[in-house]
Amino acid sequence: MKSSEKLKHKIKENRTFLCAGLDTDINKLPAHMEKSTDNIIEFNRSIIEATKDFVCSYKINFAFYEQYGAKGFEILKETFDIIPDDIFTIADAKRGDIGNTSGAYAKSCFEYFRADSVTVNPYMGKDSVMPFLEHQDKVVFLLALTSNPGSDDFQKIISEDKFVYRYVIEKSSQWAESENIGYVTGATHPNEITEIRRIVPENPLLIPGIGAQGGNLEAVLNAVKGTTALINVSRSLIYASSDKNFANISRKVAENYKHIMSEYV
Amino acid sequence: MKSSEKLKHKIKENRTFLCAGLDTDINKLPAHMEKSTDNIIEFNRSIIEATKDFVCSYKINFAFYEQYGAKGFEILKETFDIIPDDIFTIADAKRGDIGNTSGAYAKSCFEYFRADSVTVNPYMGKDSVMPFLEHQDKVVFLLALTSNPGSDDFQKIISEDKFVYRYVIEKSSQWAESENIGYVTGATHPNEITEIRRIVPENPLLIPGIGAQGGNLEAVLNAVKGTTALINVSRSLIYASSDKNFANISRKVAENYKHIMSEYV
Repeated sequence: MKSSEKLKHKIKENRTFLCAGLDTDINKLPAHMEKSTDNIIEFNRSIIEATKDFVCSYKINFAFYEQYGAKGFEILKETFDIIPDDIFTIADAKRGDIGNTSGAYAKSCFEYFRADSVTVNPYMGKDSVMPFLEHQDKVVFLLALTSNPGSDDFQKIISEDKFVYRYVIEKSSQWAESENIGYVTGATHPNEITEIRRIVPENPLLIPGIGAQGGNLEAVLNAVKGTTALINVSRSLIYASSDKNFANISRKVAENYKHIMSEYV
Repeated sequence: MKSSEKLKHKIKENRTFLCAGLDTDINKLPAHMEKSTDNIIEFNRSIIEATKDFVCSYKINFAFYEQYGAKGFEILKETFDIIPDDIFTIADAKRGDIGNTSGAYAKSCFEYFRADSVTVNPYMGKDSVMPFLEHQDKVVFLLALTSNPGSDDFQKIISEDKFVYRYVIEKSSQWAESENIGYVTGATHPNEITEIRRIVPENPLLIPGIGAQGGNLEAVLNAVKGTTALINVSRSLIYASSDKNFANISRKVAENYKHIMSEYV
């Protein structure tokens, strides 16, 4: 099954847009766990087991693992491996380089980690993105308008009454295999999500910024109602509790999100 | 010694701007070597040993190593470790994420790999770059105008008579610690290198695109004469020969570059 179909199927089956971000940091492990890299996989396994009925996707941000070097890369691989096969996975790696080099990154994300999708930074243009899109069964999320304060700096430069991020969306949606492109659009910009949803009604949107970053969930849900979207929650979900029963608390948080989201699916 | 000082010192000592790109790919190893990841470090060691007198820097593009997963990350670490301490190193990782996440990438590049510098994609704006700059002894190369065809797509969007890449340079040069920012400016755009050199006369420029990508060396040398610049050559240097004496041939290529560059230092 193509990854995009797998995503649509899981959104409908679990009636949720919830994407859980496994941004695991040893300093934030529950109080009873030793702050050791050896415990990351145990933590991830508990969170996945507890939340898998209420999510459509897991997003794994590579930075949190790369800080532990080669050992971190091993844990990253193990994390991808323990996610149930029918749940959509995102290699949140924000890669992108000149053509032949992006090909090597695509090999890493799609063949080594066997992720369903990857996040790619569009700044280097078409030839930096195409090697990812050549994996036609996968989804490639381009950064469009990100959730952080710095998104104003360059993404919102205006050229002929249009923001740079909009050029990214309009131009890329003309490329070959563009049906496999998704767009990262921060929950901190709900009006722009509505606008982007109108420009690319069919493409998946990956929406970070709910929870710790302060995006408004209801506004986002109204903007994406009935379409293919992933609403990511990381810190406020996986670190919901520092107690021994942390996984149960995370499960309740995920279940609550599903409850809110289900009528918008 | 600050990394920026180390770079300036090595450029003067070896009288060269040459940066050798260790884009090692097992399929391109010399004919007599088995195409195995086990041979990558042997190949890198031979190339480093043969070229170290004629370069000021080694640039290691992470993509070529990440395609081999955790094993690749180990080889990447070993490669950084075998580079002589007085030669400037570049973690060519093109990273960048929201603030707290960029901090984890900075930890990986500067603390785990102990690189002198990193390449960072500026698309996500100031808060995605600052965690790298907080490592005040290091150099952070922002992608400005890259060497690939796709650099036209978004870097050259014009806003109020100014290209986006120029906003990246002008805006970032106002940030705290901006003296530790360098800019990636492709050799395929020699006129723009002259312009950029004028805007930021003191900041290091990292210039890829000579060799396989077809940039004009003389034009680049005239643009950066007497300033802090790194002219990167990857494939045409490290794969100069596929024979048993490949390292000697690479040494000759590096020596020849030094010969051409020395009068411009």
